[in-house]
Amino acid sequence: MTSYSSEPSGRVLKAPEHFLSQEGIKTVVAESKKGRRDFLRNAFATAAAGAAAPIALAQSNPVPAEGGDPNILNLPTHSTSLGQSVATVGYGVPSQYEANLQRRPSPGLTQTTQASVSFAPLQSLFGIVTPSGLHFERHHQGWWDIDPSKHRFMINGMVKTPMVFTMDELMRLPSVSRFHFIECGANTAVDWGNVAVPTVQYTHGMLSCSEFTGVPLIALLELAGVDLKKAKFVLAEGADGSSMTRTIPMDLITSGEVIVAYGMNGEMLRPENGYPLRLVVPGVQGVSWVKYLRRIKVGDKPWGAKDEAIHYIDLMPDGTHRQYSNLQECKSVVTTPSGGQVLLDKGFYNITGLAWSGLGKIKRVDVSVDGGRNWRQARLESPVLSKCLTRFNIDWVWDGKPAIIQSRAQDETGYVQPTYQQLRAVRGTRSIYHNNAIQSWLVQEDGEVKNVQLG
Amino acid sequence: MTSYSSEPSGRVLKAPEHFLSQEGIKTVVAESKKGRRDFLRNAFATAAAGAAAPIALAQSNPVPAEGGDPNILNLPTHSTSLGQSVATVGYGVPSQYEANLQRRPSPGLTQTTQASVSFAPLQSLFGIVTPSGLHFERHHQGWWDIDPSKHRFMINGMVKTPMVFTMDELMRLPSVSRFHFIECGANTAVDWGNVAVPTVQYTHGMLSCSEFTGVPLIALLELAGVDLKKAKFVLAEGADGSSMTRTIPMDLITSGEVIVAYGMNGEMLRPENGYPLRLVVPGVQGVSWVKYLRRIKVGDKPWGAKDEAIHYIDLMPDGTHRQYSNLQECKSVVTTPSGGQVLLDKGFYNITGLAWSGLGKIKRVDVSVDGGRNWRQARLESPVLSKCLTRFNIDWVWDGKPAIIQSRAQDETGYVQPTYQQLRAVRGTRSIYHNNAIQSWLVQEDGEVKNVQLG
Repeated sequence: MTSYSSEPSGRVLKAPEHFLSQEGIKTVVAESKKGRRDFLRNAFATAAAGAAAPIALAQSNPVPAEGGDPNILNLPTHSTSLGQSVATVGYGVPSQYEANLQRRPSPGLTQTTQASVSFAPLQSLFGIVTPSGLHFERHHQGWWDIDPSKHRFMINGMVKTPMVFTMDELMRLPSVSRFHFIECGANTAVDWGNVAVPTVQYTHGMLSCSEFTGVPLIALLELAGVDLKKAKFVLAEGADGSSMTRTIPMDLITSGEVIVAYGMNGEMLRPENGYPLRLVVPGVQGVSWVKYLRRIKVGDKPWGAKDEAIHYIDLMPDGTHRQYSNLQECKSVVTTPSGGQVLLDKGFYNITGLAWSGLGKIKRVDVSVDGGRNWRQARLESPVLSKCLTRFNIDWVWDGKPAIIQSRAQDETGYVQPTYQQLRAVRGTRSIYHNNAIQSWLVQEDGEVKNVQLG
Repeated sequence: MTSYSSEPSGRVLKAPEHFLSQEGIKTVVAESKKGRRDFLRNAFATAAAGAAAPIALAQSNPVPAEGGDPNILNLPTHSTSLGQSVATVGYGVPSQYEANLQRRPSPGLTQTTQASVSFAPLQSLFGIVTPSGLHFERHHQGWWDIDPSKHRFMINGMVKTPMVFTMDELMRLPSVSRFHFIECGANTAVDWGNVAVPTVQYTHGMLSCSEFTGVPLIALLELAGVDLKKAKFVLAEGADGSSMTRTIPMDLITSGEVIVAYGMNGEMLRPENGYPLRLVVPGVQGVSWVKYLRRIKVGDKPWGAKDEAIHYIDLMPDGTHRQYSNLQECKSVVTTPSGGQVLLDKGFYNITGLAWSGLGKIKRVDVSVDGGRNWRQARLESPVLSKCLTRFNIDWVWDGKPAIIQSRAQDETGYVQPTYQQLRAVRGTRSIYHNNAIQSWLVQEDGEVKNVQLG
């Protein structure tokens, strides 16, 4: 706090650099050649096979040359008229042409609308950031829009000085911002039972990724005088009517990773995602990221709360229940092409998908188009971050014959995403939670893509 | 394409790891101690000064102990009732309590609403991702919501085979996803004239940062048969009525950085940001990120288009105009505390802000609270990416006396953000564009924060 230094104030300002050399202004001339070709079916596939690409030209959908007469060229209205002013859009919304892109509930999954799930439309998302409007959502007794000026956050239990914070107080404290995925422990649950859910929105859509901002929980515990020799766990408690309480081990907290978060993707959390405060527990299943967070209680044993004793437990092959298996192990899924999509013709496609691990960074993703006999290594988009989604891409030329597309991720610990056969050998067939098996998409000859389960 | 390998399919699945040891279920006991204290004014400031922190307790805003009677404890409705179902929210929106958080136009800045600017509310944003609904927006003849099924993208000029693409064709090609800032060349323009614009939304709010997804332009040019020995520049042309055309040098394109983008923060571009297609030119001022992109023309000289000859040029001290100075040089700004905000009392604050450079990564940010006499190095949040916003944070205990807060960024090239004095020595006082000077915020004794210009 007091170690001031004046370096590097003595640095000299460089002269601003030019972007282009000054070659003067050249008058634009009209260009008459324009065209279109079915390169996806013909040329690009040929190029991909290693030959030169003789690209055919066809006259359609002409783009007018500059200086032309808009009446002659049938220019669209948006090229010849005044548009709308943004002054009416203080908070922007997607295009009207994207109205079908929504998170969607699965009505049969839970018995009341007040305890339900909305799945993120992974098949149409790009990169790793989930738009907050499409972030998946799981609530246990409905969601609320809580007045932040009335919300309070308490720390009590095994601390020297119990404390209560207002939101204003929390937001004046040292903050961190980090990208992390959040996945419900029940993601891909229905597929355990060999039921092929039709689309990736419903198989894997309880998964999202955001930049979260807030105060490291360890800083708040230290402020309250936690005794780390005695305190081994905390209980996180939400303010909604579901009485959600979850046990978090102290070693995750002392690592500095657990955040008492108010920000998501640059703005305040959305109401259905816990506004104004939720816990961020990187790598751990979503239920522990307690929403509407009102209390952290410090203790020396796990609490065995109702959502730890009855729900979010794994039924093992020997009939026992495994508790507290909260770390989301390495997993991936191809999002395009995926179930419910249709490939309109043969030729080049970009296969793309997501990989993640609750134990660290993704090291590698392999993709198969023949049901796992042969694998090729996919490109990983930067940045590759710990406990965060990683986007992968790989080229594919579809020959029109049936294909089975799979992805298999490996994380920095060396752990490799299992096949269903491998997973069931350990976990049995009657579980619900923590299914991280390799997903298979069948591309039929007619281009339809379907969910199939391979051993 | 054909180099298949089967490694590492022989890997053995590790047994899933336990999150917690099985210590059984412990019944929750009620906790009676709860409290609240003005730690921000007293204890935390004391702690920051190096002493122990004797934190006072006060009874207010009690959080109920579990098991209590909600009627006695005055539990809020959201703790005792069913909430809303998310089934009605296919595309979520911010809390009602955040309604004041909007991008805002500056009515006096341009003469018609069809050619205007909306500034992003930087003072209230977290991290580096700008929510797409709050992304800054500059349009030259209104904005449009163009039907993507009718939109076409052409490549012509000095290529072997001119080509026209539909959106479907573009979206089947190899894609990349990258985080980049976009800043209007006129950001912070009004401050050139020693006019202290009141808030950071209006001084620096023509700045945003997103994850963009699309096809590298170089891949498309190679498909069209570009001759890189002759082709030195491209002209990017938009489809809206402003006839926006900008020259881009080929060396930026051959680096692979320039993207023909359709995705922004995981979903399709927003209409006011160029839906369905815009050019992404990392490090370069926003006007070159042509919206509603309909054409790339390849040539061997810069075009000197109207928005290059008349606008986005720098009036130099000798009376000449400098063109094509498009690279956004290293810059930073403190976003909290910032102009228009009020510090309600003395004590601890988290000073936070943004730094960026069009020439690479941010290497370091220093913060001063005494108008530049002393500097301390701020913490940079991860990841620090090239040509991307970087979030910085630093602790500060306000003693209630007047303070002048500044930030000074340095990028990986060694370039240091200039003072106004340094900038004016090179650029004069009558310019509009490319003001990257150090910003000063005065904190008055009454807590009000104001924009002041220091030499």
